[in-house]
Amino acid sequence: MSLPRKDLFDLPEGVIYLDGNSLGPLPKSASDAVQRVVQDQWGQQLIRGWNLCGWMDQPSRVGDRVGALIGAEPGSVVMGDTLSIKVFQALAAALQMRPDRRVILSDTGNFPTDLYMAEGLIALKNAGYQLKTVAPEDVADSIDASVAVVMLTEVDYRTGRKHEMSAITRAAHEAGAVMIWDLAHSAGALEVKLKESGCEFAVGCTYKYLNGGPGAPAFIYVRPDLAPDIQPALAGWLGHDAPFAFEPNYRAGLGIERMRVGTPPVLQMAALEAALDAWDGVDMAELRSASVALSDLFIAEVEKRCPMLRLISPRDGARRGSQVSFAFDNGYAAMQAIIDRGVIGDFRAPDVMRFGFTPLYIDETDVLAAADIIEEVMRGDLWDRPEYHQKSRVT
Amino acid sequence: MSLPRKDLFDLPEGVIYLDGNSLGPLPKSASDAVQRVVQDQWGQQLIRGWNLCGWMDQPSRVGDRVGALIGAEPGSVVMGDTLSIKVFQALAAALQMRPDRRVILSDTGNFPTDLYMAEGLIALKNAGYQLKTVAPEDVADSIDASVAVVMLTEVDYRTGRKHEMSAITRAAHEAGAVMIWDLAHSAGALEVKLKESGCEFAVGCTYKYLNGGPGAPAFIYVRPDLAPDIQPALAGWLGHDAPFAFEPNYRAGLGIERMRVGTPPVLQMAALEAALDAWDGVDMAELRSASVALSDLFIAEVEKRCPMLRLISPRDGARRGSQVSFAFDNGYAAMQAIIDRGVIGDFRAPDVMRFGFTPLYIDETDVLAAADIIEEVMRGDLWDRPEYHQKSRVT
Repeated sequence: MSLPRKDLFDLPEGVIYLDGNSLGPLPKSASDAVQRVVQDQWGQQLIRGWNLCGWMDQPSRVGDRVGALIGAEPGSVVMGDTLSIKVFQALAAALQMRPDRRVILSDTGNFPTDLYMAEGLIALKNAGYQLKTVAPEDVADSIDASVAVVMLTEVDYRTGRKHEMSAITRAAHEAGAVMIWDLAHSAGALEVKLKESGCEFAVGCTYKYLNGGPGAPAFIYVRPDLAPDIQPALAGWLGHDAPFAFEPNYRAGLGIERMRVGTPPVLQMAALEAALDAWDGVDMAELRSASVALSDLFIAEVEKRCPMLRLISPRDGARRGSQVSFAFDNGYAAMQAIIDRGVIGDFRAPDVMRFGFTPLYIDETDVLAAADIIEEVMRGDLWDRPEYHQKSRVT
Repeated sequence: MSLPRKDLFDLPEGVIYLDGNSLGPLPKSASDAVQRVVQDQWGQQLIRGWNLCGWMDQPSRVGDRVGALIGAEPGSVVMGDTLSIKVFQALAAALQMRPDRRVILSDTGNFPTDLYMAEGLIALKNAGYQLKTVAPEDVADSIDASVAVVMLTEVDYRTGRKHEMSAITRAAHEAGAVMIWDLAHSAGALEVKLKESGCEFAVGCTYKYLNGGPGAPAFIYVRPDLAPDIQPALAGWLGHDAPFAFEPNYRAGLGIERMRVGTPPVLQMAALEAALDAWDGVDMAELRSASVALSDLFIAEVEKRCPMLRLISPRDGARRGSQVSFAFDNGYAAMQAIIDRGVIGDFRAPDVMRFGFTPLYIDETDVLAAADIIEEVMRGDLWDRPEYHQKSRVT
């Protein structure tokens, strides 16, 4: 089956959805699956669902499917919790691996929660750790012998700027540091080659390009040779080697299983598992080139029509994720006006108008239609109406 | 509306469900709510759901409803993550409050994940902390000046033995220790008076007596005077004072909001929020006395008919939670045989047969019918058939 696969999604009439980088749309299969798990499984099987409906194994089973989309080895990815929690787990484990080093290195383009979770962990450990952030382009040169961990998000959530995963991982390893990649804007968007990169840890969310639904569980990858030695900081019972033996002491489970913590969110897992069906048979290299083509076209069309918008994403598709961002002083209001006309993108403070390209359900026709509407709003100064300046919390 | 309220639940035909202490049954309102949130909200509103459908405020809004059922002050409870994570947050915050003390005191009847999470935190802090567990009846006398935190589950998951919340909290405070209550088997089962108890922290899950569904989010309570001083160990972006300002540094949000971590599980939250409708107008004192009456009746009937079962729950209803447990050497097989005949309870290693009483949807007729079936299995040695001895992971 080739791209796009619009018929697999419930897309509202009259909407061009360029925000799949924030929350993917509803796959029809997910809608059916959730109804089934609620009514037939929870409703009819009750507690027996844990055995009879495969709820208990779902985090690993789904983990393997996500793993296949990011170039991970089978048995190296498990689902659960939120991305923030997975960042914490990876970071805590990484610091254990370099007990004599005290610096966590990240960049100023990292998503704030990754940095916040590092701050929280540092305060908790209270042992002289330091979070150092440098400009994205300075990361490789800043990895010295003080750095325990390099923690980066591959694709910048604001600009779409893409790090070179393999090169930076190599630089980290040459300096003796552990590498953690946050794939929030990569999984389902890029051809990720996790195993090839050699990185120790990766984490990500599934409600963006993987279309798992609002609040879908996160994932964590641990390089298979390392998993057996990790003592999980979040030592929950479902990461125990024998959760139902109810032993008084923690014994870490086999391999990646030890990164599980508490009871998995069965309804969210069901939505995600079904949502992944939309990826069956997708060639990630083909998807990536479709995404670059769509975003190249979008940049060309918008720049031609709207000179007041300043591209802040890399112009070179190879250095860009699957989103395109423009800066505009009245970006918040402009985005509201554009959304009001059926093109959904989003806004990120202070002035970023962000558009995501998701070849599963967006094609050239959509891009051209979106450019028409953006042109209408921008050239007509339609954003200047008072109703577009009322701020709400999320756009 | 009086008890029971069976019509609010989708209970399978031919089943007497005595396992609501493990996973509550499906409230009809939850089934509808989940379908609505998936199809109308996620499907039609897409990313706009965060604003337009109240997803962002749901953890606090639902927290207040749970809070009302456990005697907590408005604005003191927030939902999210799993109980294991909430234990970690409470424990980390409690240890911050007593920097000169090094002992976490718990009891041997605590649910293992609480103890495991403490172990993980202790290893992470690497500063001489110690987890000390004593027999439940020895807790009060074991709180000395070395104890930073007393962390207990009010109702023992195996025996149903109930701690005296106010008395133990008082003993903890007299010794200068911080008190954390795990209400996993209390919320929706007992008349909990959290505010009156004066405890600093409480945590719990919502998939048991509150019927929030498999993997429903957990809750955390922080005594309102303390919340402003807590520096969250899990410093996620949704606990930040201004999550959408995307500031580089963490600033804890207002009050209980700071105990939020990552993106809330919207589908699970929707199920839970709707499930709580079943509690509207329920008088918790009335519920508690119905639960004691049902379990007293169950004990009397089972003991009369099945002398081979040994009661391990307190005989005094006032000292018991909302479950009754019997020990039997072949308890696993016996429980399988009972389940096979339509009475669903569960088994906990090594030999515990556990039955939960939930007056929202269980009445005297159910108890007597369940006793008939248990008698049939036990007196007829029906458990002795080979098919009941095949072990699976969860019962």
